[in-house]
Amino acid sequence: MIELKTKNLKTIYAVGIDLGGTFIKSAIVDSKGKILKHYKTEAYSNIGPKKVIEQIEKCIAELRKGFKQEISGIGIGAPGIVTRGIIKYPPNFKGWKEVNIKKQFEKKYKLETIVDNDANCAGLAELRFGHGKKYNNFIFLTLGTGIGGAMVLNGEIYRGEQNGAGEFGMMTINYNGPMCLGGNRGSIEAHIGRNYFLEQNQKEIRKLGVNIDFEDINMFARKGNKTAKKLLNLYGFYLGVAITNYFNLMDVRTAILGGGISNNYGYFIRECNKTIRERSLKTIRKKFRVLKSAINNSAGILGASALIFE
Amino acid sequence: MIELKTKNLKTIYAVGIDLGGTFIKSAIVDSKGKILKHYKTEAYSNIGPKKVIEQIEKCIAELRKGFKQEISGIGIGAPGIVTRGIIKYPPNFKGWKEVNIKKQFEKKYKLETIVDNDANCAGLAELRFGHGKKYNNFIFLTLGTGIGGAMVLNGEIYRGEQNGAGEFGMMTINYNGPMCLGGNRGSIEAHIGRNYFLEQNQKEIRKLGVNIDFEDINMFARKGNKTAKKLLNLYGFYLGVAITNYFNLMDVRTAILGGGISNNYGYFIRECNKTIRERSLKTIRKKFRVLKSAINNSAGILGASALIFE
Repeated sequence: MIELKTKNLKTIYAVGIDLGGTFIKSAIVDSKGKILKHYKTEAYSNIGPKKVIEQIEKCIAELRKGFKQEISGIGIGAPGIVTRGIIKYPPNFKGWKEVNIKKQFEKKYKLETIVDNDANCAGLAELRFGHGKKYNNFIFLTLGTGIGGAMVLNGEIYRGEQNGAGEFGMMTINYNGPMCLGGNRGSIEAHIGRNYFLEQNQKEIRKLGVNIDFEDINMFARKGNKTAKKLLNLYGFYLGVAITNYFNLMDVRTAILGGGISNNYGYFIRECNKTIRERSLKTIRKKFRVLKSAINNSAGILGASALIFE
Repeated sequence: MIELKTKNLKTIYAVGIDLGGTFIKSAIVDSKGKILKHYKTEAYSNIGPKKVIEQIEKCIAELRKGFKQEISGIGIGAPGIVTRGIIKYPPNFKGWKEVNIKKQFEKKYKLETIVDNDANCAGLAELRFGHGKKYNNFIFLTLGTGIGGAMVLNGEIYRGEQNGAGEFGMMTINYNGPMCLGGNRGSIEAHIGRNYFLEQNQKEIRKLGVNIDFEDINMFARKGNKTAKKLLNLYGFYLGVAITNYFNLMDVRTAILGGGISNNYGYFIRECNKTIRERSLKTIRKKFRVLKSAINNSAGILGASALIFE
């Protein structure tokens, strides 16, 4: 850990690519986490892998234009399963099977290219440039349409047997609960994934109006609306149950929240903390913390570039 | 891992102590896992720590009587929380606060003394002398009155921030479920801990007779009784949900079952495996294993002595 954080005394530079289903975000980042240049473009994920790769190459070309310093490598965060540089069947990417992007890019650019799962990248960004600078053990959770997770144990991303660890969304918190698409009835994702939550609570949500999204619930809560507050408390309760499971099992005391829904933090955190206090082991309830990511918007590109700084 | 398993080319000997609430089991074990001598006595845990320690000392004296080889150290597995050789408030031990047994014994015997939680010891025994010889990542579960766990990651016991990891029993699988004494409604222990299970299913169990325990359910199942089979299927379902949570989160594919109730393995394992197949990630459901410990009865003393062989 200490070695990791001090070894790069000389500032180095990397290209970080955050490959999303809609947009590709990219940047040149230095080893201190400073973004020097950034570029964003469409992913065209509905066309096929060839087009997507062209778009990534466009990002790299734009970033390097006029940039005089040496680039140490290219880091890429991609959705779904990534093993040894191969992006496998990324969800919502049309016509994509297995693409060895590492091999392609290393041949083309003569630069080290490292690819990892986007949740791991966000966890890595948090470890290196966010709250993780202070905590050696934590779980980083992405709260959005899906519920992703990255586990940091002893200052390192824990990856599991096949680089698939941290599938926090698949944790059952009520085996009688709502069905999730993965077949895992009552998973935490089936409770607090954006669309699941909106659907299950539509009766309450309809009291607020039509076409209500999470941001609207937040807005209503800010105005003191009781229904909105109740809904966000419920969100906090579910999240608290799942985080407690993690804390109790791993003897870890820190969770960091990112993703779009973490913007509602102020409204669900009290119930979340209360739930953890009630359900966790004595040694944990005395001192734990659930924090909001401080680098949420840039976590993807920071984490992708951090792959190169490791 | 490889280093660990081959470094002790010369056979060495340790005293292993398995401190239980009713009995103390002890043995001289060699570094290959062979038990050379054993001795069992009452723990007298209802009298107080002084008496319990006298009983442990009696074990050590009996074992060393006439044993000519050099003893390398004393390993002790104890219930509850153990940190740096101090046994803290072990459950069911009267008048016990914090006792630094390591310090006492190292002074008295001039032998290295290592104390750890009994669940970790059982996991360590499995790693060194049981199925763990084949698997680098697994969770070891003790199925009994309580539900204990020990996690092996990359060939080592994972201990967490305060040596409290593996509290598998405290994992919520249904937040609306039965209350557990730890305040964690719907924990796996509140579902499958011996007394919890018998109590919650008493209506069904009463169909089998009066004063029915787990061994009786097993016996009825062996005779083909449908109620008994249904009960053990239910046990397997709950266990399967909890193990799936572990597999999905950690990207691990092996669980090993010990403790008294693991003797019912043949009757609950089918439903347990079925549940894991239904609920786990694709990459896991293809290949996972839930095994019965092969060293169940001696796991305590083997694991305690293995503390010295590490």
